[in-house]
Amino acid sequence: MSLRPAPLDIAPVRAFLQGLQTGLVRDLEAIDGAAKFVGEELALPGGGMSRPRVLQGGERLEKAAVQFTHSVGASLPPAATERNPHLAGRPFQATAVSVIVHPLTPYAPTAHMNLRFFLVDTGDASTKGSHWHFGGGFDLTPCYPFLADVCHWHRVARNAAGEHYEAMKQACDEYFYLPHRGETRGVGGLFFDDWREGGFEASFALAKAIGNAFADAYLPILRRRLDTPWGEREERWQLIRRGRYAEFNLALDRGTRYGLQSGRRVESVLASLPPRAAWVHDHRPEEGSPEAALMGFLAARDWLGSEGPD
Amino acid sequence: MSLRPAPLDIAPVRAFLQGLQTGLVRDLEAIDGAAKFVGEELALPGGGMSRPRVLQGGERLEKAAVQFTHSVGASLPPAATERNPHLAGRPFQATAVSVIVHPLTPYAPTAHMNLRFFLVDTGDASTKGSHWHFGGGFDLTPCYPFLADVCHWHRVARNAAGEHYEAMKQACDEYFYLPHRGETRGVGGLFFDDWREGGFEASFALAKAIGNAFADAYLPILRRRLDTPWGEREERWQLIRRGRYAEFNLALDRGTRYGLQSGRRVESVLASLPPRAAWVHDHRPEEGSPEAALMGFLAARDWLGSEGPD
Repeated sequence: MSLRPAPLDIAPVRAFLQGLQTGLVRDLEAIDGAAKFVGEELALPGGGMSRPRVLQGGERLEKAAVQFTHSVGASLPPAATERNPHLAGRPFQATAVSVIVHPLTPYAPTAHMNLRFFLVDTGDASTKGSHWHFGGGFDLTPCYPFLADVCHWHRVARNAAGEHYEAMKQACDEYFYLPHRGETRGVGGLFFDDWREGGFEASFALAKAIGNAFADAYLPILRRRLDTPWGEREERWQLIRRGRYAEFNLALDRGTRYGLQSGRRVESVLASLPPRAAWVHDHRPEEGSPEAALMGFLAARDWLGSEGPD
Repeated sequence: MSLRPAPLDIAPVRAFLQGLQTGLVRDLEAIDGAAKFVGEELALPGGGMSRPRVLQGGERLEKAAVQFTHSVGASLPPAATERNPHLAGRPFQATAVSVIVHPLTPYAPTAHMNLRFFLVDTGDASTKGSHWHFGGGFDLTPCYPFLADVCHWHRVARNAAGEHYEAMKQACDEYFYLPHRGETRGVGGLFFDDWREGGFEASFALAKAIGNAFADAYLPILRRRLDTPWGEREERWQLIRRGRYAEFNLALDRGTRYGLQSGRRVESVLASLPPRAAWVHDHRPEEGSPEAALMGFLAARDWLGSEGPD
């Protein structure tokens, strides 16, 4: 493992994330078969760049957003550095890809992925002049409980995260949790933040493995569920579940809260919201129904143990 | 004006709020003409009582909630007393009515009303043994800009609040504001908190005037707009506007945040959420359309000045 100083050049991370965006846009357009991603490319101050890509009203994907940003700032906002207050006010760069897919069919799960890299010019020789970390992960939110899908998702996650799978899975279950409902947002996956383990090269390799694994984890599930017919009952349930998704993102998600407070472009911050949602007062799924069975999936569980190793 | 000590008996306030609930339930059922409010009556510890009333899927009201609660607690939670930290841990009572109406037609505005009374046993002779205040108000959220409706609403508000109208209207505009959108939630109304002005009797009289004014302010507007035919275009716009409503309630509303954090019954805390909502990425109403004209209503404005005194 190399322990050379963190490079101040963000370019390789940016190039990887841009490539990830390009690939996912292509894959998701192929799956939808009709709608295209649209979005401009916006130059940001200091050499940064934002490239939002959003698909809406597709034949099979009701909404998908695959957003790339590279921000360059002269002074790190205090809200961005709660854990590292000494970095506030320093020059920084951040680059990230954020992905959300809300399929039209209630049988295909919603998926979310985020990868970000953060680089701060500390101006302090003791840290070799820079602080950096990776963060991100991916998580899955089904409306219907297909054990095979969830096991596949977690198998791919484990293969990507290796020895870090257990910790990252636990962090994911803890983060995507609605305490007022007593349920997780979905069936989890991977979550990591402030990641520097093993130095830059090892951390970047892990981030790449996780980023590349997202398509392997999600697209087979998506393809498998797209052609199942559904009716009003399933759609109604999907909209209720999407209401929970909106609850999490608006009331609990740190990234959304920070984005709204920091004056970022609101359409980007809220791109993850479901295209439609519903709240039904005191809704309780019928006992013994597939909808009721989903509730058993919305808690931290060992998804791989029951299946045994693959 | 009487300056007698605040009575420790919460009964008259509770009786007024229960009567307000009963009247509004009756009025709204009459307007809907088909659906009924449902809900149990729950005894709470210490002699408190909760009486939620929710109507869903009506012919003309898609959702309405008129909730009464009277809580009696041995120890005031710190989160309830940010402005009066010395009251934390003291015995308290709180009684409130909370109203939300989401009509089916996009041409009728959503309305919200809340009245609450708070009584804390300070155990301190210098305050005659108790701290109390009133809070609440009402606000209107249209999808379409009918100046006559808004002027009527604010005329009734002014008549109820009297000399306090300007301050309560300003507080309402400031509170129901989405900074990330740069727009108010609706066209405002009245908002007050920690209200003790002129002593208990004057404050209670003002709270009663505002509570009683809600039906006068809202029901004529509701009746006037219920029979206008609408189509897909109006419904789509309504769902987008309801998305903003959900954004405010989930991401910004202090009452909702406190309710979610304090472990109150989630169905009550979130009863104000719209039954359906939508988020359309980067939606912009057509220039010159009624939808675009609404945006001119979503900022603090003097609604009475343009009309002159009535």
